[in-house]
Amino acid sequence: MEKELCRGDLLPLCDGIEEPEISEHFREMAAYIGELQDRICADLSRFDDRPFSRERWDRPGGGGGLTRVSAEGTFIEKGGVNTAVVFGVLSEPAADRLEIPQQAFAACGISLVIHPRSPRIPAVHMNVRRFELANGDGWFGGGIDMTPFYPYAGDCVSFHRCLRDACERIRPCSYQTYKAECDRYFSLPHRNEMRGSGGVFFDYLRHDDETNLALVKSVGDSFLEAFIPIVERRLSETFTQDDREFQLMRRGRYVEFNLLYDRGTAFGLKTDGRVESIFMSLPPHVNFPYDWSPEPGSVHAEMEAFYQPRDWVNDSDG
Amino acid sequence: MEKELCRGDLLPLCDGIEEPEISEHFREMAAYIGELQDRICADLSRFDDRPFSRERWDRPGGGGGLTRVSAEGTFIEKGGVNTAVVFGVLSEPAADRLEIPQQAFAACGISLVIHPRSPRIPAVHMNVRRFELANGDGWFGGGIDMTPFYPYAGDCVSFHRCLRDACERIRPCSYQTYKAECDRYFSLPHRNEMRGSGGVFFDYLRHDDETNLALVKSVGDSFLEAFIPIVERRLSETFTQDDREFQLMRRGRYVEFNLLYDRGTAFGLKTDGRVESIFMSLPPHVNFPYDWSPEPGSVHAEMEAFYQPRDWVNDSDG
Repeated sequence: MEKELCRGDLLPLCDGIEEPEISEHFREMAAYIGELQDRICADLSRFDDRPFSRERWDRPGGGGGLTRVSAEGTFIEKGGVNTAVVFGVLSEPAADRLEIPQQAFAACGISLVIHPRSPRIPAVHMNVRRFELANGDGWFGGGIDMTPFYPYAGDCVSFHRCLRDACERIRPCSYQTYKAECDRYFSLPHRNEMRGSGGVFFDYLRHDDETNLALVKSVGDSFLEAFIPIVERRLSETFTQDDREFQLMRRGRYVEFNLLYDRGTAFGLKTDGRVESIFMSLPPHVNFPYDWSPEPGSVHAEMEAFYQPRDWVNDSDG
Repeated sequence: MEKELCRGDLLPLCDGIEEPEISEHFREMAAYIGELQDRICADLSRFDDRPFSRERWDRPGGGGGLTRVSAEGTFIEKGGVNTAVVFGVLSEPAADRLEIPQQAFAACGISLVIHPRSPRIPAVHMNVRRFELANGDGWFGGGIDMTPFYPYAGDCVSFHRCLRDACERIRPCSYQTYKAECDRYFSLPHRNEMRGSGGVFFDYLRHDDETNLALVKSVGDSFLEAFIPIVERRLSETFTQDDREFQLMRRGRYVEFNLLYDRGTAFGLKTDGRVESIFMSLPPHVNFPYDWSPEPGSVHAEMEAFYQPRDWVNDSDG
């Protein structure tokens, strides 16, 4: 893994350092994430009794973003779809660590987390982003993953097949690699389990920017294709108090991952990002029961196998 | 701050490395924490409709502990009072980092977290511990702190005065130092606020083991003196749904601190500690609302001043 950036690594633009010359790919990415944000919010809102809010913010030093949040609705208990396009300068220690001279950077991305109210609908997360340095280096990153709370194997299969198609349409045979990376990344090593049922994840994609841009756009576009059919199948289902308790407990694992291990959360906090935007990803209501274990033979005991790496696209339940 | 220990730093005792010769102070501390655990559980149980459970565990490699938990009672919504006495060997990298040869260690301590159901009663945390190395080095550490959810300044004043007396009975003029250390440690830098209203905190107390042992015992003993009068004052008070929502939101900050910053949690997870015992400290039910802010002029707006360093022992509200 690359060396990580720390608090103060990204300073506002200052005297003597010019804005990076952003690439054509950066411009195209920045336009794409704005359009995708609109499309996703409009489509998700169809199922809810509330719209997404709309809050623009500026970054002192360069750039800004648009935060769109929906909370306490009939479908979305808490969710956000955020875009940002920011410019700044690497701090001296950061530049030293990367073994490059201090210089300007540009970054843009869309980041989304949806915590549905119903435990029959998985929580989902999607993010695609582009990072560029003034020295000409730059990379794409991103991914999508799901966190189900009810043992509908078919939903995991359809979700993963959709992501496989989105990746392999652009880069043949890439799904297995990105899927394995996702299994590895979204894991709770202290519990030997994953946060959810995975998806695809990739970072530091360099060279062949043309193909990489097409890939992140294909992955971004696949979010609605992968998630909406599950919402349509499950939204009208009733659920039990036990289902809800299980969801609230698993959301605790979500919190554990995001606060203990997530690079994005750590990066945001260390670079003095907007706290409410960073913690938008945290579920609205969460339980941390002591020493919970499922009723043997219950649907919730069955869920344990959903939080281990599994070959979903070839699963017979699909 | 001292260099921290990491995953695998504490190995089980193995061939060629002998158990450390534990000191008389260690023996006395180990006996004390067992006695204190009994006393605290018995006293807290008087207010509840449930007893503390009792679960012994052994550490492969040496030592073990007694976990005592109470959950979903009328008074304690989730709480634990844990003791441990463990023996092991520093890993090679850990020994290298401390610039000492690889060697055996012994550690013992009591750790307590109580999350009362009522938002009128603060959450409390207490921990005292002793760590010894085979080379003869050793230190004491510990502290107590409170996290109130309702603006009873008098409760903070009585709590802090009790801790001041406990510290200064043994070590004159020490309260201000330990109080400042607590304010610094239990803080959320990304929010510029504290987890609660502080208390006392100290670590790596070396030299004069006699006095330091007396100090940690005095602090351990003071827990019931500091907390029980608050419970007696507040237990029968009714509270509103708004009070409860505020408590659940502030518990979110408690989770943020414990997972993002707490050295004890990080240490436990990195050294493959028992996950359920480590996360015993997490509150049972928690909310992470998006961009919460209090009603201006409300009691909850008043609480903001409780989460900043404040000279409680000289507060006029006492």
